[in-house]
Amino acid sequence: MEAVIEPPVTAQASQVQEITVGDEETIAVYDAIVIGGGPAGMTAAIYLARKQLKVLLLSKDLGGQAAWSSDVENYLGFSMITGTELTKHFQDHLMKFHDEITLKLMRDGVNSITKQPTGFTVELGDGSREQAKAVIIASGKIPKQLGIDGETEFLNRGVTYCAWCDGPLFKNKSVVIVGGGNSALDAALSIERLTKDITIVNSTDSLNGDEVMIEKVMAAHTIRVLNHSQALSISGDKVVRGVTVRDSQTGTDTELAVDGVFIEVGSVPSSTFLQGFVELNELHEVVIDKRNMTSVEGVFAAGDVTDVSEKQIIVAAGEGSKAAIQCSKWLAGRP
Amino acid sequence: MEAVIEPPVTAQASQVQEITVGDEETIAVYDAIVIGGGPAGMTAAIYLARKQLKVLLLSKDLGGQAAWSSDVENYLGFSMITGTELTKHFQDHLMKFHDEITLKLMRDGVNSITKQPTGFTVELGDGSREQAKAVIIASGKIPKQLGIDGETEFLNRGVTYCAWCDGPLFKNKSVVIVGGGNSALDAALSIERLTKDITIVNSTDSLNGDEVMIEKVMAAHTIRVLNHSQALSISGDKVVRGVTVRDSQTGTDTELAVDGVFIEVGSVPSSTFLQGFVELNELHEVVIDKRNMTSVEGVFAAGDVTDVSEKQIIVAAGEGSKAAIQCSKWLAGRP
Repeated sequence: MEAVIEPPVTAQASQVQEITVGDEETIAVYDAIVIGGGPAGMTAAIYLARKQLKVLLLSKDLGGQAAWSSDVENYLGFSMITGTELTKHFQDHLMKFHDEITLKLMRDGVNSITKQPTGFTVELGDGSREQAKAVIIASGKIPKQLGIDGETEFLNRGVTYCAWCDGPLFKNKSVVIVGGGNSALDAALSIERLTKDITIVNSTDSLNGDEVMIEKVMAAHTIRVLNHSQALSISGDKVVRGVTVRDSQTGTDTELAVDGVFIEVGSVPSSTFLQGFVELNELHEVVIDKRNMTSVEGVFAAGDVTDVSEKQIIVAAGEGSKAAIQCSKWLAGRP
Repeated sequence: MEAVIEPPVTAQASQVQEITVGDEETIAVYDAIVIGGGPAGMTAAIYLARKQLKVLLLSKDLGGQAAWSSDVENYLGFSMITGTELTKHFQDHLMKFHDEITLKLMRDGVNSITKQPTGFTVELGDGSREQAKAVIIASGKIPKQLGIDGETEFLNRGVTYCAWCDGPLFKNKSVVIVGGGNSALDAALSIERLTKDITIVNSTDSLNGDEVMIEKVMAAHTIRVLNHSQALSISGDKVVRGVTVRDSQTGTDTELAVDGVFIEVGSVPSSTFLQGFVELNELHEVVIDKRNMTSVEGVFAAGDVTDVSEKQIIVAAGEGSKAAIQCSKWLAGRP
């Protein structure tokens, strides 16, 4: 699930002011901490850097979900580009500001954010803590699980949530893709020439993605679509060997012999660490106002983790810009 | 003021369905008309095209204000690029969809939009009319005038609102730039190496742009800054010869001998044609809701013409995407 990324910029110690808290612990004080290194977080960090603010960018990777897309043809300025290449452009852009932006790649994510008298403390999964006057949350979304038998058992042993990352492992193999929207179609197209055969298991009566994508899928001879069908369970020994699919019109169950199960049924906001800290909506998205501010003064949010309904790379980048502008205004005492 | 653009795509007659209205007049019916060809309008058109909707893009140019920027370093994916080059990328991207998007370049803009029983009629400055089921307004902003003596008289005879477009005409000349924000600083830097000397006439006590920009201006030896100063009048014969500047601290008036006056005091929404049609706020910006819909059902808006306060290329592009997604949902009967 990790996107392949370039070696990170090392922490710029010179950029941060260190203060002593309690007896021994020293924590760095930034103007702002940006959580998440997708298009929203990268844009926010660049905008803050251009305002000569001290920024810490915390992320598991640089690229976020954008890195997992096969072909992107709707990010203005790049007619047709792979997610990997687009992400490389984003990373190159970010690296131009390595004097202003401290990048810290986290393996275990963020545990919590807490409000302090003079700012916020972000506790990371490894127990370390960072402090800043303001926070921009841009933690994006993570893939949704099916919750069926074998799904967890065979994770990374045939079961994957990222066709783009793991597709190459399934060369000349048989694969089932569960889902019928753009991410499922994108997954199918990204491995079409690689695999022996692909079966899309779609729960509704027809595919739901963009017309352009649907046409490409229908034109591909190696892709078969099973509509009104559900994946019931995944079986195997050391690795995946099969998946049981139910036709919801006939009620018939069929065991398909496959080597891989790609689960592409959408995603959920990466907001667990925010529960009880900022207001979330019923979809667990961070509620923001027109200034991209959350329910907590000084905490902003941008991109797919928010309640902005359009989950698009270009929208996330735009929202990252908005959040950073509002954050810098707020920091300057002009909210 | 017109950006230099590539030859336009010719109208794709095959893409439009013609209907007869009244006795003789035939007007084309599109799914959506996008008004404005800046980053917001171009992104909206591309998104609609990818949904295989019939789109008419009406604009005076392709690029909008983005084309007038000297250096852009905050559009994610392009580390440092001129507005002209970035606009070229945008145009190339748009042209990939020439089968789906009909482009009509207008010289005189739009006169009005009126609601019809089945959609909307857009009347152009040349008297022609176009019809569509939905409209996306992305008409951007136009430069603000000072309202001083000589300003209109010497327009295009030394007075300009677009340093980026007209700067090259002032090679080895003396120039005054009126304004103290990013657009004034950008104007000064864009002509710095070209002109003999540049005087920035700024009404406040210090420059107001990004720190990065201010530093560059202060480092440039050919640029002089007059703070707390106002341009009172512009004089000349056939062309501009001078500008009178008042120091508001001392009350002293000084006549500066110059060849050019670049007015960079901000911009106003291009929304005159919308008065009485959709709700505008006190800044004459189009009021939009979370779905980018205006006060009129079926009419959406995006970019600098709207009440989204962050006027940025990347934000405009993101908003264009949002408006198009909401417009296509609305067209599909799922508002």
